[in-house]
Amino acid sequence: MAANTRMATAIQILCVIAYKGPAGTTSEVVAGSLRTNPVVVRRLLKSMQVGGLVEIRPGKDGGVQLARPPEQITLDQIHDAVETAAGVFALRPRGNPKCPVDSRMKSLLTPILHATDTAVTDTLRPITLASLVDQIA
Amino acid sequence: MAANTRMATAIQILCVIAYKGPAGTTSEVVAGSLRTNPVVVRRLLKSMQVGGLVEIRPGKDGGVQLARPPEQITLDQIHDAVETAAGVFALRPRGNPKCPVDSRMKSLLTPILHATDTAVTDTLRPITLASLVDQIA
Repeated sequence: MAANTRMATAIQILCVIAYKGPAGTTSEVVAGSLRTNPVVVRRLLKSMQVGGLVEIRPGKDGGVQLARPPEQITLDQIHDAVETAAGVFALRPRGNPKCPVDSRMKSLLTPILHATDTAVTDTLRPITLASLVDQIA
Repeated sequence: MAANTRMATAIQILCVIAYKGPAGTTSEVVAGSLRTNPVVVRRLLKSMQVGGLVEIRPGKDGGVQLARPPEQITLDQIHDAVETAAGVFALRPRGNPKCPVDSRMKSLLTPILHATDTAVTDTLRPITLASLVDQIA
């Protein structure tokens, strides 16, 4: 599988916004930190706006700011906002309905996939955005 | 991110092989259960051979069998065998070296990525292939 950098990118985006202070910044400034296309930044910002983590101000004085203090943003919330499509693993589409193995896979794997997703969420939940930003000089 | 079905596919492959018994089976039979291309099966089998989970017999009487009893194959071993390229998340390439946020991301994120990978491994380790196959009629 290709390395999944969405989470790392989203965390860095929020760290830049938090680092800039309460007034926020722009997607162009954030893209400059990441050295990536502002389109990539805006796409993830949109997901994080839907997830309630950032507020985007449109227009010529537009920009982006955190929706709440970084002490109140946790990494599992970021994960939920940007990794909506899939968990750690996913079930595959149904195979051969006559195969006794295939017909059991969904019910056997669902609790395991759920457990791995929960393990990741439980690991990320205690970590606040503030705890990262505080370590940036 | 696209749903990652490698792990689910690998588990199903091993379940089919285990279900067929000690004599093993062929990648074509496994592909019939998954209703997928045998090439997909053979690619994952190759990874699992390198990972020491299966033995592949080439030639006209060729086939595939488990390298050890299903009681001795755990899901974290399967995960290690087929998800070698990346963990749950990955660091992104270095961004702007002059940005104080970018220059701290690697050292801030590495322990977090390690913790999530460990959480997944710890969740998968107690689950044996046998515990799944035993539930298939």
